[in-house]
Amino acid sequence: MKVLGIDLGGTNIAMAIVNENGEILARNKVETKVHEGFARVVERMSDAAIELIEKVNGVSKIGIGSPGSIDHENGIVRFSPNFPGWINVPLAEEIEKRTKVNVSLENDANAFVMGEKWFGKAKGYTDIIGITLGTGVGGGVITGGKLLRGHDGIGAELGHIIVDPNGYPCGCGNHGCLETMASATGISRLAKEWKERYPESTIKNFSAKEVMDAARMGDQLGVKVLEIVSQSLGTALGSLIHIFNPQIIVIGGGVSRAGDILLSNVKKYTRENVMRSFWNTYEIVLSDLVDDAGIFGAASIGFEEIES
Amino acid sequence: MKVLGIDLGGTNIAMAIVNENGEILARNKVETKVHEGFARVVERMSDAAIELIEKVNGVSKIGIGSPGSIDHENGIVRFSPNFPGWINVPLAEEIEKRTKVNVSLENDANAFVMGEKWFGKAKGYTDIIGITLGTGVGGGVITGGKLLRGHDGIGAELGHIIVDPNGYPCGCGNHGCLETMASATGISRLAKEWKERYPESTIKNFSAKEVMDAARMGDQLGVKVLEIVSQSLGTALGSLIHIFNPQIIVIGGGVSRAGDILLSNVKKYTRENVMRSFWNTYEIVLSDLVDDAGIFGAASIGFEEIES
Repeated sequence: MKVLGIDLGGTNIAMAIVNENGEILARNKVETKVHEGFARVVERMSDAAIELIEKVNGVSKIGIGSPGSIDHENGIVRFSPNFPGWINVPLAEEIEKRTKVNVSLENDANAFVMGEKWFGKAKGYTDIIGITLGTGVGGGVITGGKLLRGHDGIGAELGHIIVDPNGYPCGCGNHGCLETMASATGISRLAKEWKERYPESTIKNFSAKEVMDAARMGDQLGVKVLEIVSQSLGTALGSLIHIFNPQIIVIGGGVSRAGDILLSNVKKYTRENVMRSFWNTYEIVLSDLVDDAGIFGAASIGFEEIES
Repeated sequence: MKVLGIDLGGTNIAMAIVNENGEILARNKVETKVHEGFARVVERMSDAAIELIEKVNGVSKIGIGSPGSIDHENGIVRFSPNFPGWINVPLAEEIEKRTKVNVSLENDANAFVMGEKWFGKAKGYTDIIGITLGTGVGGGVITGGKLLRGHDGIGAELGHIIVDPNGYPCGCGNHGCLETMASATGISRLAKEWKERYPESTIKNFSAKEVMDAARMGDQLGVKVLEIVSQSLGTALGSLIHIFNPQIIVIGGGVSRAGDILLSNVKKYTRENVMRSFWNTYEIVLSDLVDDAGIFGAASIGFEEIES
């Protein structure tokens, strides 16, 4: 079985043909150039896809992971914050028409958790929570082996779990969403807010990566921010463990590259928020697909449909 | 189709034979007398069940709703806080042996939400959240038509969603669980804590019922507590709407008898915590099964199994 996984991002479109063992047989990458409009993006995406499909025989399915609100059933992007003008665009149909290969479209956070189930640390599990810590915080949930979609397909917005009702205003209009604390944006903001208390800190540009690197080196501002971020994640994961009784929680996205220092703190604060009867029922891990998580996620959507 | 629904409570065991139209054909009730031990409770439950089954022909299934941690698959009560000594007791098997009718055992909060799907306000819906506000706060979730159980069958602990990480200590060991605020116990405690600020209040015994009745009459202490309780529910329901994208949320349990004054406040504070893109995707209602919710819930577990 061979599936072409397409990871549609705001800057690049990355794609690869993947087999069921998670081997990448060929890959391709083009710029998204959103400003050129939907039709041109579709063209560039299909051209790159066709190039790959012609190179490797036997691709039976294309899976696309896209940010935004996705109508999986009809293969439509309802809207996507970083893709202006993409309102109810039939992305799956357009790609299918050009490539002559059946296409499945899915939200990128749902694709992430499915990718972990097929090719990542959650292989063989049926009850999985995926959290991506990037510019925002995304989420996907597999419960009893099935992707949680919700009635209108807009569920699993785990970044908008409220971890502090009196917390920071979130882009979504709420206060104290997990995303305000555990996204790259949130980490950056927290570091700026706390810097006056830590004049000796070496943090200069306040990117999430710099803050996490600093924390690893023992920089006290970095350590402080890491603690706040991990507490917020611990609060959210505590609630999620009580709700979903998952076997495994996989954390991905750019911020997860912080590695062990993040993981050990998240584990500690999560345990503080979990009932005894749930201790030992879950593990928390970092994704090891990081760079290709988007491609594997997209491909897994294809594999999942072939299998079902 | 006729199912015998048994609502196992700490004080009483209520049961009735229900048909698929939600009509009660016969009912019975015995004291639980937990202190007499598992064997005697089983005996009393089966005797009462047999009496009913002999009265009404054609009962094809028994559904039991039980508090505590339930192993649905094996029909076992793992443990139940108010049933001391009930550790891994094979309740389903014991009742089946005596009644000669096939038995399904389910957690009472799961039974509640299933009862709403079969016989209550969520009839015909596939994505449903049920919350029971009683001595504690229980929860059940149906997503894509299926009961959410979690990997070990202990999921949907909606009372232990953390609504304030710096909140009150909860019986579960956490801080700021929904249960600390929105249970009858929580309401009673909140009223006692705030009473000094409201010397003119007429609230005397501080039961949840009295507090809610007082709120309805405009008593300022009652109104204050109602507001705090509704805010906590709004925070939890906001998160749950983002997670499950449900069509309907049904609130039951003794506290829900407070009626419209509770419902209107919960609606208001929930909306404050819900993203615009989820507005108009959900309704919030109070259960109208109240007195028989336990029986209907238990019966629905039987009907669900017959149907599947």
